[in-house]
Amino acid sequence: MTSNLQDFLTTRKQAIEEYLFTYVQELKIPEELKSSMLYSLEAGGKRLRPVLVLALLHAYGKNEEDGIPVGCAVEMIHTYSLIHDDLPCMDDDDLRRGKPTNHKVYGEATAVLAGDALLTESFRLITSQLSSSVTSDQKLRIVDELVRSAGALGMVGGQFDDMEAEQKQVPLAELESIHARKTGKLLTFSVTAGAMLAGASDDDIEKLREFSYHIGIAFQIRDDILDLEGSEEKIGKRVGSDTANEKSTYPSLLTLTGAKEKLHEHITRAKEIVSNLELEQQLLHELCDLIASRDH
Amino acid sequence: MTSNLQDFLTTRKQAIEEYLFTYVQELKIPEELKSSMLYSLEAGGKRLRPVLVLALLHAYGKNEEDGIPVGCAVEMIHTYSLIHDDLPCMDDDDLRRGKPTNHKVYGEATAVLAGDALLTESFRLITSQLSSSVTSDQKLRIVDELVRSAGALGMVGGQFDDMEAEQKQVPLAELESIHARKTGKLLTFSVTAGAMLAGASDDDIEKLREFSYHIGIAFQIRDDILDLEGSEEKIGKRVGSDTANEKSTYPSLLTLTGAKEKLHEHITRAKEIVSNLELEQQLLHELCDLIASRDH
Repeated sequence: MTSNLQDFLTTRKQAIEEYLFTYVQELKIPEELKSSMLYSLEAGGKRLRPVLVLALLHAYGKNEEDGIPVGCAVEMIHTYSLIHDDLPCMDDDDLRRGKPTNHKVYGEATAVLAGDALLTESFRLITSQLSSSVTSDQKLRIVDELVRSAGALGMVGGQFDDMEAEQKQVPLAELESIHARKTGKLLTFSVTAGAMLAGASDDDIEKLREFSYHIGIAFQIRDDILDLEGSEEKIGKRVGSDTANEKSTYPSLLTLTGAKEKLHEHITRAKEIVSNLELEQQLLHELCDLIASRDH
Repeated sequence: MTSNLQDFLTTRKQAIEEYLFTYVQELKIPEELKSSMLYSLEAGGKRLRPVLVLALLHAYGKNEEDGIPVGCAVEMIHTYSLIHDDLPCMDDDDLRRGKPTNHKVYGEATAVLAGDALLTESFRLITSQLSSSVTSDQKLRIVDELVRSAGALGMVGGQFDDMEAEQKQVPLAELESIHARKTGKLLTFSVTAGAMLAGASDDDIEKLREFSYHIGIAFQIRDDILDLEGSEEKIGKRVGSDTANEKSTYPSLLTLTGAKEKLHEHITRAKEIVSNLELEQQLLHELCDLIASRDH
């Protein structure tokens, strides 16, 4: 990783976490519920989704300030989805990022409500926390994009189909459709919302939507590869769990070599799209490389 | 009930249900997930929350058209909250309105996701389904109000505190705070969002917020009374369940007679507030009487 990228990731992660924790901390809500929400928000993670929002603003040479609440909104939605996915009736996971999952600490009922609360509250970061330089139309467009990305048309629908596909072999096209929604759509939101805040043209936004599709698929392929080749300590969960659960993955459908080739193709395509846009390309190219080679 | 009110309730319920079912039916989402969402939406109910949105527009002499998507948004949120509340880890209810609860039919995982999907989608009814006569600022204000009403500051926070208060005696002030959030806030949203759509003044909106507080408490007291005196067939659940669960209720804290007096006080206060506003009062007064005397 270049020191340039490292510096961007470190400084932005810090700014995002500070805003996110303070915002939730200051809500006048039941203390134990707040504690449960903060537990999962503070459990760490790369903050990739908010970082992408800021990276787009940076690439367009814009002030990143309004990217922080928007980035925190998508991080809240990502976090709620992990809390609900880990529930006994869903994936029944006891550990997440090496720590006990939310329901193991706070009980299932509180975990359900903490997820519901994070999902609901995320929208208010957009309606009430942006500066006056963002127009009401821009805000509404971003809320609309977030609903499409996070709801039944996007992440929730992908999660449902993923659950249905468990323990059976699904064709590559279906696997791709599932991941494009389950993990891809929130990444797409981050990229397009960043571009919307930057005042990008509709044409740019559509090209960036395609860019985000490729990085979303690449992200998932890398996840599948890490499940086979990764370090348990770094990824914070058991290696080989996909194989044990008989899940269809890119390596299981394409072989490990085939999956690595596919990953390379998607990253190359993503970089090409960025190269044809009028924005500062270096940071976005470096983020593509990071997604392709990350070890956790 | 006057034939005037009866006619209003019947025609508006029909318009709301037609819009609601069609909207969800036309979403391009996984079929089984859609089926689970529709199962709970179609399970019936008084549609009191959307009816209130339309009643406010009617009282201000405005076209009710945009009240329908806004009413459907709050009905989706009400429905998601019932699905999650009925889960085994929450209230563990097998029956709702005389029919098997969502998770008994579709399984717990689908029930969690159907709730998440309804909650998320509700916001898009406001961002993308209103006519051009509603300004972007009005839409944002309504989304913001919906988040405050439905999330940790409102309904979810009330549900959390209600859960914590189970099987212990809580003082009246705390009981009132729980209900004002758990059931009251969505009623407040319906009233204030209807007034916002009608272009009411901020002063009117604040008075109507107080009005809705009183009808919310009255609604809950009537619920508690029905649990003691109601017909199982009409309310669709077992009578006496609050007593069996040792829940604090208005009758348990105030005696049945005391609870009925309290109900009367809140309804009287609600009607007084309406009487001092410049709008058509009859329908709102009749709705107050309905809330005070409903048998289900």
